[in-house]
Amino acid sequence: MQNNDQYSVVYPKGFKAAGIHSKIKKKKKDLALIYSEALCTASGTFTKNLVKAAPVIVSEENINNKIRAIIINSGNANACTGEIGMTNAWMMVEETAKALDIDKSEVLVASTGVIGQQLPIDNILGGIVDIVEELGSEKDNGVDAAEAIMTTDTFKKQFTSEFVFEGKEIRIGAICKGSGMIHPNMATLLGFVTTDAAIDKELLDEIVIEGVNKSFNSITVDGDTSTNDMVIVLANGASGVNRIKDKDQEIYHIFKEKLIEILKKMAKSIVVDGEGATKFIEVRIKGAKNDEDAIKAGKSVATSSLVKTAAFGEDANWGRILAAVGYSGIEFNPYETNIYIGSSKGELLVCEMGMGLEFDEDMAKKILSEKEIYYLVEMEEGKGDAVIFTCDLSYDYVKINGSYRS
Amino acid sequence: MQNNDQYSVVYPKGFKAAGIHSKIKKKKKDLALIYSEALCTASGTFTKNLVKAAPVIVSEENINNKIRAIIINSGNANACTGEIGMTNAWMMVEETAKALDIDKSEVLVASTGVIGQQLPIDNILGGIVDIVEELGSEKDNGVDAAEAIMTTDTFKKQFTSEFVFEGKEIRIGAICKGSGMIHPNMATLLGFVTTDAAIDKELLDEIVIEGVNKSFNSITVDGDTSTNDMVIVLANGASGVNRIKDKDQEIYHIFKEKLIEILKKMAKSIVVDGEGATKFIEVRIKGAKNDEDAIKAGKSVATSSLVKTAAFGEDANWGRILAAVGYSGIEFNPYETNIYIGSSKGELLVCEMGMGLEFDEDMAKKILSEKEIYYLVEMEEGKGDAVIFTCDLSYDYVKINGSYRS
Repeated sequence: MQNNDQYSVVYPKGFKAAGIHSKIKKKKKDLALIYSEALCTASGTFTKNLVKAAPVIVSEENINNKIRAIIINSGNANACTGEIGMTNAWMMVEETAKALDIDKSEVLVASTGVIGQQLPIDNILGGIVDIVEELGSEKDNGVDAAEAIMTTDTFKKQFTSEFVFEGKEIRIGAICKGSGMIHPNMATLLGFVTTDAAIDKELLDEIVIEGVNKSFNSITVDGDTSTNDMVIVLANGASGVNRIKDKDQEIYHIFKEKLIEILKKMAKSIVVDGEGATKFIEVRIKGAKNDEDAIKAGKSVATSSLVKTAAFGEDANWGRILAAVGYSGIEFNPYETNIYIGSSKGELLVCEMGMGLEFDEDMAKKILSEKEIYYLVEMEEGKGDAVIFTCDLSYDYVKINGSYRS
Repeated sequence: MQNNDQYSVVYPKGFKAAGIHSKIKKKKKDLALIYSEALCTASGTFTKNLVKAAPVIVSEENINNKIRAIIINSGNANACTGEIGMTNAWMMVEETAKALDIDKSEVLVASTGVIGQQLPIDNILGGIVDIVEELGSEKDNGVDAAEAIMTTDTFKKQFTSEFVFEGKEIRIGAICKGSGMIHPNMATLLGFVTTDAAIDKELLDEIVIEGVNKSFNSITVDGDTSTNDMVIVLANGASGVNRIKDKDQEIYHIFKEKLIEILKKMAKSIVVDGEGATKFIEVRIKGAKNDEDAIKAGKSVATSSLVKTAAFGEDANWGRILAAVGYSGIEFNPYETNIYIGSSKGELLVCEMGMGLEFDEDMAKKILSEKEIYYLVEMEEGKGDAVIFTCDLSYDYVKINGSYRS
């Protein structure tokens, strides 16, 4: 089977993209543009951090319009930059609109990188004029866009999928960037998804909220939430397949499943590329009072530095897991709680009804030596389930994040 | 001035103590006893973790009685041990009462160490018979008790203070142990304070709650709360100074200040001995809407792995500090927020009204190279202040906590 992932955001019909160097970074690509010939239905989720970067504020203002373009720069987050920052974010939107000959209400903007410094706005405005000339739908265009949004990411994050409905193909494409914290600052998470499906705004909003909750909102690399986080989905209808208007339509369910699947892949790629990560960890909570409690418990385990260093050390330290559930704030009976460790090498019950078992330490070591492991916490409170993705906490995490901005 | 700190809990009149090896650990001291000839008014605070160790449950049951003894073992936390664990905790209490010829309602019990394994109860019961023979009020007794409660602590934590009131001396003594997480498990925090003041239970409870909030509850090494945490204060009245019964008494205020001061010293010593810590960090929040918000913001900054690794790297990364306040859940205006970094080498404004400043990087480096540093976040929301103590996140933290239980 052919892998089309490198096409990323230009895989769906009617989308173009480009990625260039516009002198924000010293040498690397730092400006990306995603463009649709047709107007798109757009949905987005934005950081919940009270400290919001200027591009977040601007894009939140435009997200309910029909959208045709997203301009994204890396290397400078345009966060904590005051009025000048707001003016610069709007200038990026306006220059993009002008260069594409579209309305400024049809443009979104995103930034990632250093915070607290003003954008080199002249370089960027020049870059916008240049990048419009580079727009295309070839594989290279998809790759360039994916590359241009990277900060400390160690690999490009590109995804595609498709399905056929009543003889016509619907495609989805995506790029994202992860938790780069060097230089100097923080774990910005950006995700951009394109599709040639046609769908009503309301339905797309609902799917995106549910999908982001099950993907990006279910990962935690270090528990910090950036000033610049943003996930955008654009649907331009270019597939020619009938519009999705109703939850009763079969295509609604197929599309929803496919979109959430790609959001999960994107989120997972960010955890795998977590700074210094050597292991991917799934924290699975079953039998909490409700899903909300399950998520709380799962996040408490997944953000525990003690649990994460134990994973790095391949240590079956279930006591830290139980303790993290204990201080998560949920109500549960520890003496009706089981904990398993698992991976492709097997699954081992290490704590039964809240009490430690004399388990096979060699087997535990073997299970935990895998690159992908899971912790399963089973309670008897109700039907609340959750899966949270995280990574281990390694020497390299400290090294990367402790290094002086330079 | 003579330093009496090594006398620790036997510094106040009428207290005896001992510390011995009772074969829980291989070689080191692992059993401590604190004893007062007279009945003591007792106050205690216990872990908020829903997963409570057996000794916590037992001591919570006895804390409102008059108390004469505390029996403490290290090396095994008696946590996640079910009914057998409860029986063993009660057996420790009963054997101590029997050996001292006092009532079992007058005994508290505490444990720290490995979780999920049953106590070697026969060794401990034998140890209790032996330790009663060792009780004394010499310096060595204070030192032995401090040593016997240690787990991964790298130094003994002993404190004393005194004040003279109307010609008579009142003394306070204390031992504590910190955030040892090796072997295999978690950050248990135990603190025991003795005083020969006489004070009503209600007033002592109030002071202990306020004091623990300003000390132990204001520190965070890695954000995890153990199953075994416990701070106990015993007041036996042996100083002969008039009983503290009323907040209008001058001695009430002096005693309160002295007690809180020693609790703060104890808490600070635990942070300084945080696993792998190379720096002590004070996070100071000023001008939050109220104290509650200030504490929330301070804890969010103090538990951020990004902030803590930046401190280790001596990097003036104020963006991470502002972002941590931003996702703390409090309401504030980032554009009315200033951030300073400081130490004995000076203070530097690095973020003014939410915007980055072009500060002197050499000066910043100099300030942050100190062993004790602070971050000051000034908001304009109200009069809420807080100070949270924490330490940096170093390679050694990962090393210590990632190592296999062995």
